Amino acid sequence: MILNKEECFYCEKNSELRNKMIEIKEFKNSVFYLNKDQRYYGRTILAFKEHRKELFELTEQERKNFFEELSLAASILQKVFNPSKLNYAIYGDLVSHLHVHIVPKYQNGENWGEAFINNPPIVTKLSDSDYDRLIQDIRKELH
Amino acid sequence: MILNKEECFYCEKNSELRNKMIEIKEFKNSVFYLNKDQRYYGRTILAFKEHRKELFELTEQERKNFFEELSLAASILQKVFNPSKLNYAIYGDLVSHLHVHIVPKYQNGENWGEAFINNPPIVTKLSDSDYDRLIQDIRKELH
Repeated sequence: MILNKEECFYCEKNSELRNKMIEIKEFKNSVFYLNKDQRYYGRTILAFKEHRKELFELTEQERKNFFEELSLAASILQKVFNPSKLNYAIYGDLVSHLHVHIVPKYQNGENWGEAFINNPPIVTKLSDSDYDRLIQDIRKELH
Repeated sequence: MILNKEECFYCEKNSELRNKMIEIKEFKNSVFYLNKDQRYYGRTILAFKEHRKELFELTEQERKNFFEELSLAASILQKVFNPSKLNYAIYGDLVSHLHVHIVPKYQNGENWGEAFINNPPIVTKLSDSDYDRLIQDIRKELH
């Protein structure tokens, strides 16, 4: 089922969103979230603030800001987690609200050399204190 | 095996590149290619011109240009192929040269609602004349 704006959890910031992710930081044009599934250590999401579907629906200024924010987020993840490569994906067939999955990949780690598994059948959850620690580590670098 | 600059087909533009894709258009900071695998009708690649690995290695101006070019490419694909959603992915664990897979997805089509298959075991090739036709259709909209 394709989510419209009225039922979009990125817009509504409802319990569905809170089940999937934890807010790290609000930027000018986007919100940066820690993905609760940590199969890939440091996996996060950058969601555009407004309900837009495709990149070409952004104004030039919005696009510039959004990708600067993505670049900043990526550089922070590189510092904190030191992955071998960062992967970035915008899918959104069903949840079309523009969001980028930012997925640190590690040589000899899960799915190295192939696409990350977007919705793994088993979610790799951490304890609340471990989520907190990751978020604090990321926020420290953001300041 | 991770490809270094010396063996990078995006830099060398060698037969390995020509086996995988066909150049559509050179932009200021990137080159736009048709992916020979057309499992997803209209699948293309936008490769940054220089050998860079992560988004945060680009200058502000390069990043602005690159994502404007990506947005333009996406808008053209939308016009020509009318997909239900465009997917975009930067992976590059092994071929780290910055490139975006732009993958049109179609409701009721292949892998709708899930991640596209990046390297399908069976490549969906078209005839040379069909590749030519797609490229001409895209170029027409670019002008």
